[in-house]
Formats: sequence, structure tokens, C-alpha cells
Amino acid sequence: MTLTINSPLDMHLHVRDNDMLKTVAPLSAKSFAGAVIMPNLVPPVVSLESLLDYRKRIFDAVGDEKFTPYMTLFFKNSYNYEFLQKVKEHIIGIKLYPSGITTNSQDGVKSMDIEELRDTLEAMSELNIPLLVHGESDGFVMDREKEFGETYAKLATEFPNLKIIMEHITTKESVSLLDKFDNLFATITLHHLYITLDDVAGGMLKPHLFCKPIAKRPQDREALLNVALNAHSKVMFGSDSAPHPVSAKESCGCAAGVFTAPIALQALAQLFEKHSKLDNLQKFVSDNAVNIYSINPPVKKVVLEKESFLVPDSYADVIPMFASSSLEWRIKSVV
Amino acid sequence: MTLTINSPLDMHLHVRDNDMLKTVAPLSAKSFAGAVIMPNLVPPVVSLESLLDYRKRIFDAVGDEKFTPYMTLFFKNSYNYEFLQKVKEHIIGIKLYPSGITTNSQDGVKSMDIEELRDTLEAMSELNIPLLVHGESDGFVMDREKEFGETYAKLATEFPNLKIIMEHITTKESVSLLDKFDNLFATITLHHLYITLDDVAGGMLKPHLFCKPIAKRPQDREALLNVALNAHSKVMFGSDSAPHPVSAKESCGCAAGVFTAPIALQALAQLFEKHSKLDNLQKFVSDNAVNIYSINPPVKKVVLEKESFLVPDSYADVIPMFASSSLEWRIKSVV
Repeated sequence: MTLTINSPLDMHLHVRDNDMLKTVAPLSAKSFAGAVIMPNLVPPVVSLESLLDYRKRIFDAVGDEKFTPYMTLFFKNSYNYEFLQKVKEHIIGIKLYPSGITTNSQDGVKSMDIEELRDTLEAMSELNIPLLVHGESDGFVMDREKEFGETYAKLATEFPNLKIIMEHITTKESVSLLDKFDNLFATITLHHLYITLDDVAGGMLKPHLFCKPIAKRPQDREALLNVALNAHSKVMFGSDSAPHPVSAKESCGCAAGVFTAPIALQALAQLFEKHSKLDNLQKFVSDNAVNIYSINPPVKKVVLEKESFLVPDSYADVIPMFASSSLEWRIKSVV
Repeated sequence: MTLTINSPLDMHLHVRDNDMLKTVAPLSAKSFAGAVIMPNLVPPVVSLESLLDYRKRIFDAVGDEKFTPYMTLFFKNSYNYEFLQKVKEHIIGIKLYPSGITTNSQDGVKSMDIEELRDTLEAMSELNIPLLVHGESDGFVMDREKEFGETYAKLATEFPNLKIIMEHITTKESVSLLDKFDNLFATITLHHLYITLDDVAGGMLKPHLFCKPIAKRPQDREALLNVALNAHSKVMFGSDSAPHPVSAKESCGCAAGVFTAPIALQALAQLFEKHSKLDNLQKFVSDNAVNIYSINPPVKKVVLEKESFLVPDSYADVIPMFASSSLEWRIKSVV
């Protein structure tokens, strides 16, 4: 049995920089036609110059593969209309992080007070630049995303023409927002479709499954599965694949992030097949994103076949999800 | 400023075996007059012979320190009246583990069906042998203890003369059971008075704070603090100090357990002082246990003084809570 995916897209991806970039970017480029690149480098990507430099480094890392890095800027409320007008053609959106909420987010916004963000968000709205949001409060870890729901609602209401992407949603409450506000969309990761907090901390503690937002309850996973498997038109696949060297994961303080880029399509095929929803995978990993963002990714046909794929124990010094386990689908060819 | 604690007791302690026993038992014996020793060795302590052997190994490890290991058997529903009558004088109670719920609990009870446990529990009740319980269901990790509440209620009702200790409670629901059933008591750990899930997984993931039951919500911690700081007559200090070598903590699958034995009294003094409850510490770490269990521990005066204590980064290859941090109290002398 084979399955062809046309131009698969990863709408939320960390490729980092330097050696890590050289390790992981080619792995994404191998099976995806494009990816939305997160701007939380150290320092973050806040200028056109640094954005174009980063884009060039990604192309260098990727080599000859057909792969479009959809670039994002790191949100600053100092961005004005003129600046945004200038950068518009080079970016797919702007990523907003509340300060300190995840890896390399120290320079994020200190407050989600709409008035402090208004000028920049109005300019983005006028220029039709999407806002990508890491939506978590600074509350109790299991409540952070749910608590941010009010902020999503306020943003959606105050800026009705602003396209707002709720990144890597993990709760049933976030899912329910999709049908309440026309201008709210979402990405969903692979790992949040597979795991709950039980997988992270219910048996042994599993650092390689520790991520932000943290995996939630079984009911939350069910809600995510429901919209992903049915390819709800407002949800897109975004791996949030976030590589860390093994030394930063298996240590006294383990960094947040699950590395899934090289195994994501295979694991998605397995999941969608298990639920008899293989027909919807094309929409979830490509068509919905094309429609939501009005993009035109490179033509790339990824043929998956139902043959056992033993996931490597590591890629360089990064341990992927499903390391040393078998998935039921492998990539047969990419054209 | 100094504070004298008479015969401090740790009513829930793991000292393991072999080299680990030799490392950790002397650390407990240094500052405590006695401790309730958990029976979840591999294989578990289920016979009088293995119990007495283990007790001897503990005495050997402890050396000349005045220290009473209060021994427990690992619950089996095959224990009958005659056996229990024979072992009674050698044990302080019997510890029940649901199978697979925590470290070395594979041989625990497969079902909490009261009828399967009735004969043994009735014999224990008649012989006045306390039942110590690791109270967690096999449900979602944050709900396990709460879900076990029904079982506690059923045990307390069906065996009104059986003294039941809810070990290492972590939720406000467990706290509320104390005042509902005369025969329910509880131990509370140091770490559950200090941390919530936010400390384990809210920032970086902290394997050395990963334990079972997992730390819960701020409201749960508040409920625990309320009964501990006020030395509720039905609660006792039980560290659940659970040493693992660093290789088992900082790894791909991290074992559950926080190692607190050598720093527990110092950290408790700091906590109780912060809340202006130092006067209640004697009850929490000794008197309540003496009353609940009707025991007569060795006379041991531990004098704490308010001087900075730099917690070692490790004890042999075990990393303690507060490693490399300063506590505000240290042990001045033990007589």
C-alpha cells in the first residue's frame, strides 16, 4: 500500500542555527516542501537583515532540495507600519511569544495588554500579515493554555481582519475557539496527537517527550485528534519539532522540545490509517495551510509505503520521538 | 537561634539495599531517631526471615547511631492470621501497593476489590496491625490519588478498627478525608510541602523533583501545608526519601523519587519558621507519630540552629533536593 502526499508542509518548525541547523534542516527538507521557520534564535530574528541572513543559512544547509523556508519575525510592539510594509514580502507572519514562556522567549512581550500591542497589530491587520501566537499564560503549567483563551478571544474580537494562528494547541478549550472566531486558526503537532501527560510523567519521566505547551489530558488529545483526523479546515500540521542535543535533554534541567521532523510524515500516516482517515492527511499536512496562508509551495510528491521503518536511535546528537522503535510507514520516494 | 527536636521520626523512608543502603541509611540515622522502612525491595519483603535479615543489614549500615528501623511487610492477600500473629512484634505495619503503581511495586495487589483483601485486613484489624497504603489508581497521572479516595473511604468504613495510613498524600481531597474517617491518618513528605507540578515541569523539566505521586496543584500544596504547619493530630512527617543513582535520574526514562533524608529536618525548620509555626514542628516530626502508632522511639535530641547550610551537590552518586543550594537552618548537634 502506498500513499502520495503532494507538497507536505510543516507550519511550525525550529531549525535553530549553526551546527544544529546543518543537522536538522536537511531532514525537514527531505520530506517537506516547506516549513514555517520559528524566529526564536539567540538573539531573536527582529530585523530584515537578520531574517534574510538566517534564510540564506537555511538554504545553505538544505542544499539542492526543493524546500521553501517560510520566514517569521519575532514580534516586537516597536514594529511600525513602514517597517512592516518593507518586510512583508519576506515573511509569512510574525510570531508572538509572551516573555519567558518557552525556549529563547526572554525577549517576548512583557504583557498581553492589547493597548500595548495595538499599533503593531493594526498595522499587521492592514497589511494582511498573520499573527502566530505561543498562547500560554504564566499560571499553573496545566492551565496556561486554557487561561490564554481569553486573550485569544480578545485579539480575535479587537482585530477582526487579523489572521491569528494559535500555535501548537493542546487543549479542548483551544479547539473550541476555532468555531467561535472566524479569524482564529491553529497548528497541531504530531506529539500532541500521540501523547498525554501520562506518557511524559505517568510512568518513568520521559525527557524526550517534554515540551511546551506540556501534553495535557486524554480528553484534550481526543479533541485535537477530532479536528486533525477530520482535517478541520482551520487546522494545519505544525510539528513544533524542536531539537536539543541529548546533553540538554537528559540532564538536571531538561530543555523543552520534541524532535519529530524526520519521522513526522511516517507517524502521521500511521495515526491517520489507524483511524481510517488516510484520505484526510493531504488536507491536514498541506491543503489547509495552502488555503489559510494563500501560499504556493514547491511541487513535491512524497510517496509513503506501508513498510516497517525503524526510527534511528539518534540523528547526530538529537534523539527523535519513537527513537529505536518501528513505525508502520516509511518514505518510499520523493520527487 | 536554635531549635531542639526530640526524637525526630521519618514515618516513610526508602533505604534500599546493598551499596545504596550503606550510603543512605547512615544519613537518616544521623538526624532521625527512627524511620518506617519501606518493604519494596527486589524481591519485596514478604517473609519474617527476609524482614529480619533486612533489619540486620540496616543496623549494620547504621552502626552505632541510636536509630530504630520500624519495619514493614509488603502486603499480600495470602497473609493469614497465624502468620500475622507471628510477625506482629517485628513490624510497625504492612504496606499495600497497587501493582505497578510505583518503583518495585510489580508484586503489589492486582485489584483493590475489598473481598479479595478482606481476610487479611480483618486479621490485621484484630491484631491491631496498621495498614500503610500507596493510594493511587491507574488513571490519568494528575487524578490517580483523587480517584483512590473512594477506596480509602471503603477501607475505612469496612474495617473501622483498622488503622489506615494514607502514605505521602498530595491532594486537598486526601486531606479532607482525614476529618471524615476516624481511622484514616496520613504521612506528608517534605517535597510535597515545597513543590507543585510547576517546579517539576513548569520551566525546565526537573528529574530530581519527579516522584510518585507526582506533585500536584498550588491548591493541593496549600491544603497539605495547612495540616502540616498546624500539626493536625492525624498527620505525620514521612519523607518518602527515595534515592536513585544519578544515572537513573538524568536519563531517557527517569526513575521516580526525591532524595531528602539528609536535608529534611533543616528544610522543615526553614518552612515552619517562614510560616511562624516552628512551635508545631515537634508534633509534625515526632509526637503525632508516637501517638498514632503508640511507639517509644529512642531518646535523641537534635539541635538545629539558624545558620546557613550549603546542601552538598551529591551524597555518593545520589543528588539530594536543594543540591548546591543554601538552607537557612543546619544541624548543630545530635545527642
